[in-house]
Amino acid sequence: MTYCVGLRLRDGLVMLSDTRTNAGVDNISTFKKMHRFSAPGERMITIMTAGNLAIAQSVINLLEEGIEDEKTGTVETLMNVPTMFQAAQLVGTAVRRTYETDHAALAAQDVSFDVSLLLGGQIAGRGLRLFEVYSAGNFIEATEDTVFLQIGEHKYGKPILDRAATYDTGLYNAAKLSLISMDSTLRSNLTVGMPVDLLIYRTDALEVAVERRIHEDDPYFQTIRSGWSTALREAYQTLPPPPWTNGDGQGGHRLQ
Amino acid sequence: MTYCVGLRLRDGLVMLSDTRTNAGVDNISTFKKMHRFSAPGERMITIMTAGNLAIAQSVINLLEEGIEDEKTGTVETLMNVPTMFQAAQLVGTAVRRTYETDHAALAAQDVSFDVSLLLGGQIAGRGLRLFEVYSAGNFIEATEDTVFLQIGEHKYGKPILDRAATYDTGLYNAAKLSLISMDSTLRSNLTVGMPVDLLIYRTDALEVAVERRIHEDDPYFQTIRSGWSTALREAYQTLPPPPWTNGDGQGGHRLQ
Repeated sequence: MTYCVGLRLRDGLVMLSDTRTNAGVDNISTFKKMHRFSAPGERMITIMTAGNLAIAQSVINLLEEGIEDEKTGTVETLMNVPTMFQAAQLVGTAVRRTYETDHAALAAQDVSFDVSLLLGGQIAGRGLRLFEVYSAGNFIEATEDTVFLQIGEHKYGKPILDRAATYDTGLYNAAKLSLISMDSTLRSNLTVGMPVDLLIYRTDALEVAVERRIHEDDPYFQTIRSGWSTALREAYQTLPPPPWTNGDGQGGHRLQ
Repeated sequence: MTYCVGLRLRDGLVMLSDTRTNAGVDNISTFKKMHRFSAPGERMITIMTAGNLAIAQSVINLLEEGIEDEKTGTVETLMNVPTMFQAAQLVGTAVRRTYETDHAALAAQDVSFDVSLLLGGQIAGRGLRLFEVYSAGNFIEATEDTVFLQIGEHKYGKPILDRAATYDTGLYNAAKLSLISMDSTLRSNLTVGMPVDLLIYRTDALEVAVERRIHEDDPYFQTIRSGWSTALREAYQTLPPPPWTNGDGQGGHRLQ
């Protein structure tokens, strides 16, 4: 499986993806799921993928080679689309092209057409945006109300994001949050695995601030992992104990 | 949907279930999913159910009416089975009987036979045990290595249990943990809803210690809910910030 999370904040963008793929539980590999399309000073676009690896790779290849606009005849790539909205449309088109090519053969093998992508970035003179593109090629955008989007195994890592991620969260804290969210997912789902790829982008910089592969033995990740475990255990222990005695009204059965 | 969690600890048993059922998102009701079969001093058995409500209610009804043993002719119920292992077998039999009765008609309506149960308790002279019974009527048991079992929407509430629940966790702390786990689930899945039913049983007591319906406005639950949110936010803020500068080796792009 996969876990990817993107946060689009006032200060910028944080993108984090794992690298594990599996074909059954006995065939596990490492594949980079984060792809960057950037020209410093002009655009910084990054994509993370989840779902069927062959489909995801096909979509990325189409985006790299470009897709011909049927009306104008020009070949569009993520390096030349003029806006992030058109970038999202282009990704959607790439998904639909892949569907047209592959879905019949996949269906014949009882394989569903399963892919989803997070697309984030900024093009000079325009705003920073973050989209989630579905397997139908349609998409939604993160907003100030809902600043994060997730693809893949999203549930284990969602509670901390629900509680702590806001539009005003700083990039440092957002990177921490994304790593905490990833750590919760890694612990509970073996098909999400290290290393992870982190990208941090500051609004209007038009170049990447941090792009880093984080391995299991990374000292900072270990600090987050052990510190978070300790903090959770301490947090629940400092909450007060339940005040209830026996519900049958006889009292007395107060728990130690 | 549903979320139920059971913890089988050295000191006893903690069972917690929500009460929401839904047939589509526009038809939501409250049903008790926790059922107790007990005779103080002799046995204390409790069952929680998830899945299709009609199937779950059918299984509970079979357990209350009893199932005739084909060899001996005796009618077995949870009030007369001699061991918890046989109680789990009886629940499995009730699930299989319901399958035989209903699965063809359900399949004709494209409804899957979906039910799972947590069965916990103790019978005089024997050990405290906790089982999860699947829709095939087979079952697994919680052990000292894995002290908690979950049914229904289990993912949101699992990380805190993974980190903090051990065989030596006290009953008070386990009740707190189960409520924290439930709170995380309630926040993220609207088809899991208040009120919740909590049961606490102390090993060898052979009667219930605490049995309580907890509503949204319960002061202790509100303390847990707000205290946990605050603790999580503080915990992530006290973890150190990432030390990384620009990964391209040019340094300088240190984030504020």
